[in-house]
Amino acid sequence: MLHFDSDYMEGAHPKVMQRLVETNLEQTPGYGLDEYSAKAAGLIREACGCPGALVHFLVGGTQTNATVIDGLLRRYEGVMTADSGHINSHEAGAVESSGHKVLALPGHQGKVDAADLERYLSDFYNDENHGHMVQPGALYISFPTEWGTLYSLEELESLSRVCHTFKIPLYMDGARLGYGLAASPDVTLKDIARLCDVFYIGGTKCGALFGEAVVSTRPELLPHFFTHVKQHGAMMAKGRLQGIQFEALFTDNLYTEICGNAVRQALRLKQAMVEKGYRPYVDSPTNQQFFCLPDSEAERISKFATFEIWAPCGPMQSIVRFVTSWNTGDSDIEEFISKL
Amino acid sequence: MLHFDSDYMEGAHPKVMQRLVETNLEQTPGYGLDEYSAKAAGLIREACGCPGALVHFLVGGTQTNATVIDGLLRRYEGVMTADSGHINSHEAGAVESSGHKVLALPGHQGKVDAADLERYLSDFYNDENHGHMVQPGALYISFPTEWGTLYSLEELESLSRVCHTFKIPLYMDGARLGYGLAASPDVTLKDIARLCDVFYIGGTKCGALFGEAVVSTRPELLPHFFTHVKQHGAMMAKGRLQGIQFEALFTDNLYTEICGNAVRQALRLKQAMVEKGYRPYVDSPTNQQFFCLPDSEAERISKFATFEIWAPCGPMQSIVRFVTSWNTGDSDIEEFISKL
Amino acid sequence: MLHFDSDYMEGAHPKVMQRLVETNLEQTPGYGLDEYSAKAAGLIREACGCPGALVHFLVGGTQTNATVIDGLLRRYEGVMTADSGHINSHEAGAVESSGHKVLALPGHQGKVDAADLERYLSDFYNDENHGHMVQPGALYISFPTEWGTLYSLEELESLSRVCHTFKIPLYMDGARLGYGLAASPDVTLKDIARLCDVFYIGGTKCGALFGEAVVSTRPELLPHFFTHVKQHGAMMAKGRLQGIQFEALFTDNLYTEICGNAVRQALRLKQAMVEKGYRPYVDSPTNQQFFCLPDSEAERISKFATFEIWAPCGPMQSIVRFVTSWNTGDSDIEEFISKL
Amino acid sequence: MLHFDSDYMEGAHPKVMQRLVETNLEQTPGYGLDEYSAKAAGLIREACGCPGALVHFLVGGTQTNATVIDGLLRRYEGVMTADSGHINSHEAGAVESSGHKVLALPGHQGKVDAADLERYLSDFYNDENHGHMVQPGALYISFPTEWGTLYSLEELESLSRVCHTFKIPLYMDGARLGYGLAASPDVTLKDIARLCDVFYIGGTKCGALFGEAVVSTRPELLPHFFTHVKQHGAMMAKGRLQGIQFEALFTDNLYTEICGNAVRQALRLKQAMVEKGYRPYVDSPTNQQFFCLPDSEAERISKFATFEIWAPCGPMQSIVRFVTSWNTGDSDIEEFISKL
Repeated sequence: MLHFDSDYMEGAHPKVMQRLVETNLEQTPGYGLDEYSAKAAGLIREACGCPGALVHFLVGGTQTNATVIDGLLRRYEGVMTADSGHINSHEAGAVESSGHKVLALPGHQGKVDAADLERYLSDFYNDENHGHMVQPGALYISFPTEWGTLYSLEELESLSRVCHTFKIPLYMDGARLGYGLAASPDVTLKDIARLCDVFYIGGTKCGALFGEAVVSTRPELLPHFFTHVKQHGAMMAKGRLQGIQFEALFTDNLYTEICGNAVRQALRLKQAMVEKGYRPYVDSPTNQQFFCLPDSEAERISKFATFEIWAPCGPMQSIVRFVTSWNTGDSDIEEFISKL
Repeated sequence: MLHFDSDYMEGAHPKVMQRLVETNLEQTPGYGLDEYSAKAAGLIREACGCPGALVHFLVGGTQTNATVIDGLLRRYEGVMTADSGHINSHEAGAVESSGHKVLALPGHQGKVDAADLERYLSDFYNDENHGHMVQPGALYISFPTEWGTLYSLEELESLSRVCHTFKIPLYMDGARLGYGLAASPDVTLKDIARLCDVFYIGGTKCGALFGEAVVSTRPELLPHFFTHVKQHGAMMAKGRLQGIQFEALFTDNLYTEICGNAVRQALRLKQAMVEKGYRPYVDSPTNQQFFCLPDSEAERISKFATFEIWAPCGPMQSIVRFVTSWNTGDSDIEEFISKL
Repeated sequence: MLHFDSDYMEGAHPKVMQRLVETNLEQTPGYGLDEYSAKAAGLIREACGCPGALVHFLVGGTQTNATVIDGLLRRYEGVMTADSGHINSHEAGAVESSGHKVLALPGHQGKVDAADLERYLSDFYNDENHGHMVQPGALYISFPTEWGTLYSLEELESLSRVCHTFKIPLYMDGARLGYGLAASPDVTLKDIARLCDVFYIGGTKCGALFGEAVVSTRPELLPHFFTHVKQHGAMMAKGRLQGIQFEALFTDNLYTEICGNAVRQALRLKQAMVEKGYRPYVDSPTNQQFFCLPDSEAERISKFATFEIWAPCGPMQSIVRFVTSWNTGDSDIEEFISKL
Repeated sequence: MLHFDSDYMEGAHPKVMQRLVETNLEQTPGYGLDEYSAKAAGLIREACGCPGALVHFLVGGTQTNATVIDGLLRRYEGVMTADSGHINSHEAGAVESSGHKVLALPGHQGKVDAADLERYLSDFYNDENHGHMVQPGALYISFPTEWGTLYSLEELESLSRVCHTFKIPLYMDGARLGYGLAASPDVTLKDIARLCDVFYIGGTKCGALFGEAVVSTRPELLPHFFTHVKQHGAMMAKGRLQGIQFEALFTDNLYTEICGNAVRQALRLKQAMVEKGYRPYVDSPTNQQFFCLPDSEAERISKFATFEIWAPCGPMQSIVRFVTSWNTGDSDIEEFISKL
């Protein structure tokens, strides 16, 4: 059976695992105060072109979103997102659980449009009753989005401009950042660091066992972040584990390189599906591919490959999602194509 | 200047005020543990036909909604509402502030449709990923709604049936309950008590200085409610103040009678507006009336009457809201008509 | 039966009530945006000698404490208090409910000692592990304290100095502020405004039906306080009710004068008890008086007067509390003495 | 340099690490819904003698405490603990952050006394004002405690009896459970499962890279725990990582055996310190050893070994803590003794 359910089905990239094994019996201080974490933070700052950035390692995505967003907001503030945003649907209300409303904007294949954002903010401040409403306190976007789509550089610059005009921090969820960067024609990590106030570089789905690297070019937005992270239960005793992993991922371009493989394999899979006559539901350039399939076809493919049923898209039809990972091999795709 | 901004612009009905004055220097225990509160609770239980109901007095509407909803839900649960619901827009995120997501269903002139509700709940439980999502834990409706509309008895029965099928408590916000009851052709207070698990009888907008009476026919849904209310900062030291007011309101049908006046005056105002050629935005039978007016006409009327600009409804047009209250006099409406 | 259970057993001072009656049928905007609230705020600013102070009216004490403290703190911060502080015992966990730890310092007859405070803060910052601990983010004191005692001007100045050295806002709970000011030999309202960053002037226990006036000389500490108050369910629709009451209380020194009566009556009661041979448990100069009584004596007195049993103070002995109010009459005390 | 700072300075036991390596490239479902997690849960249920227990894997200790406690409590409830409890001091207010007060009972070398507990609960329910206070909703204990001490079987049975009399769930923090079980003369894992309602078996400090296994013999106390865990940000995408580790730890008694080593080494260190004339601050039988040392002696030892300064214990003296781990070797202790 071939597996295209998700990009967190395997463990870590072998080079990452090897470093965990090599360092296993060393003794270091806890809570990320070790040398490996310091070195990884340095490599990340360098890759981002931000020598002064705050870099902090957390464990998983939902945790990172809830912790960062709660750190950015005051009690009377909420976070804006595309309606399809992960925080609005599949995080079990973690943001609300720390007291903040999720303010949904219309999503365009998973993306927030700068014009929508500007209108929302203008309308809000023009509304005489806005004192009775949740203040917009941050914008959440993801790169790639839930639908595998990417913001162009121009789109990101527009969002950043609107945010800064209204003094709203821009936060990017980078759970699959490596796949986004590998697929984008124009957006680089340095662009993201320049345009976002806070973002995270996803490890869990991009070659690590687990771990997400929060980066902020405006550390004053997240005061006492160490304590805040601890309070959210998001602090690892053996914080070095993320340091070691991110050091490996940010050495010799490993992160970018392995994510590039996933994107290539995904595009091969997509092409094969299209040639077979299936219709992409969204034109995704990244490692998640969505198709609208007759249920009978989905049934047929499920005999040799796993994937996720996403939602209905008409009578007897479903949106299905295929996901490749850094570990998807040529042979996996070839076998898939041959059985298709 | 005539005032139709809202129904909380005056103090209390003179009979209510008189009782506050008469009892002012009496000494009673605090926190609603006095005789007046007990008597008022008894009158309310009688009017509801529920001898065993929990009756508890709170101060205001947002507070009551947040306190009751937080009391009904477990941490992993959210509250469903029409998207236009007051808790979803004009309560500054009070529900989220106590940790719960507001789950918006499509509103139909402010109302939740039982078929939508059933579909939402079915889809939720059929979704393989629902363990990652906020559990629907209660349904919030209001009577009348934000748009002044009313559920018919049949609609309420349908909602109640769906809720009970899915074991979801049904909670009704009755900030303007008196106006709703006065206007409804078929729904009585006893029906509400029979069909809802928790509801509140609004005092602030319906003749009291302030105060809302929470009623629950299933007190086990709100365990240790006294302490819960205290924790929410919703407990009045001089709890008798609400007891005295609700005793007056529930003596000799005062509550129903004075609310009936508001509805009659609102319908006269509506008829005058329609005769003048203005288009109601919603066909409201209660004390809130909405029209879609050219901005120039709104401007003109604002010379002699206050009202609220609700939202745009086309180029150079706005939805405006006129509200009457228990205290709106015949002469107010006549003056309005004469100037219209 | 004479009543000395508490100072919130009556309604409002007749002059306050009279103003509520006189203005009852006027129509004003809601939410404290009316003229009466503006006028009351002006009178309070004048009495405090702080023309630029933020003044905001809330409904009750627990609500005010939770709302202000939550407004002052960031998520990773807690509030320090004497262990006997009201927020630490009798507010049903309202502060924790909004996410903040209450950090208890040793109380000295209800008071926080500046030296203890300084030691606590020094120790905290010297502790290598303080990043894993709740940051002290505000100091809560009350005037008078739970035990009826008062800070001297020098004590207040010391606390204020320590707080400002550590950049910790000083917040004073003034539920009974009028009684404290009436009894203090040296502390004035202007001193409090000068030494505290935020405090509230209690209305509920000091002549109003209800209402507490929050005053802050550093409004930047409570940004968007209107929305924050709304979110806490602490906003009154008919906000003018507090404005009208505080205007009455701050006209012609009514507040100070009526509270002075309570203190005088309390001291007469105390003297009578002492002459009868009963031992004050605390030497309180204010309207709350505590005695350590044999249970048999408490039983005897309870035949003609109500009071609160506070705690045991030895075998068959209890601490009891007698409270006078602005409404306690000469004849009440005389009758009490005659029956003692 | 020898390291006795803590028991989380190394990675995982080699057998644990080996299993992570062997399974690294396998593909499994996420969120703990894999075969390894199922197998590990089975082994734990067997070791506990509880075929029907809920077993759920979380990442770290603070997270587990906050998640479980928040799951056990209703909004109006708090958690009791010894004043020295980890949740009361070094978890950055994580419990309060989810809305619950930590109710501190006097600690006896880190332990809660059943008689104190009973008195606290009786006094609470006898207090007329308890409706205004936080309800005690669970008891938190740890085994071993913060001071390395252990409850005897009789003490545990007494606590359990009091808890069940008052219908209060008993929750045990087992961050160092392996060390406690290895050192206890009479308490077994089956006893713990029998006497506690919920507990966790610590992995992070006892041979795993990370991971804590929550066990509840009354799963109805933690409804929808999967969603609750997700909401707390405590769900690992690659949940199998804990399954694989706990399977290794619960195969061939690895958990007990390696923890036994730590205890033996700790007792050798303790004996050497005592023979050298140093005074244990607490008589701990487990892998944490506390001494009251003159600062000059602490300074001297710090030349060849790391340890934690815990608190002052007199002028120029400090309580210091030495901790051994599953990985402390004979040679480490011999070197320590030789340099002492």
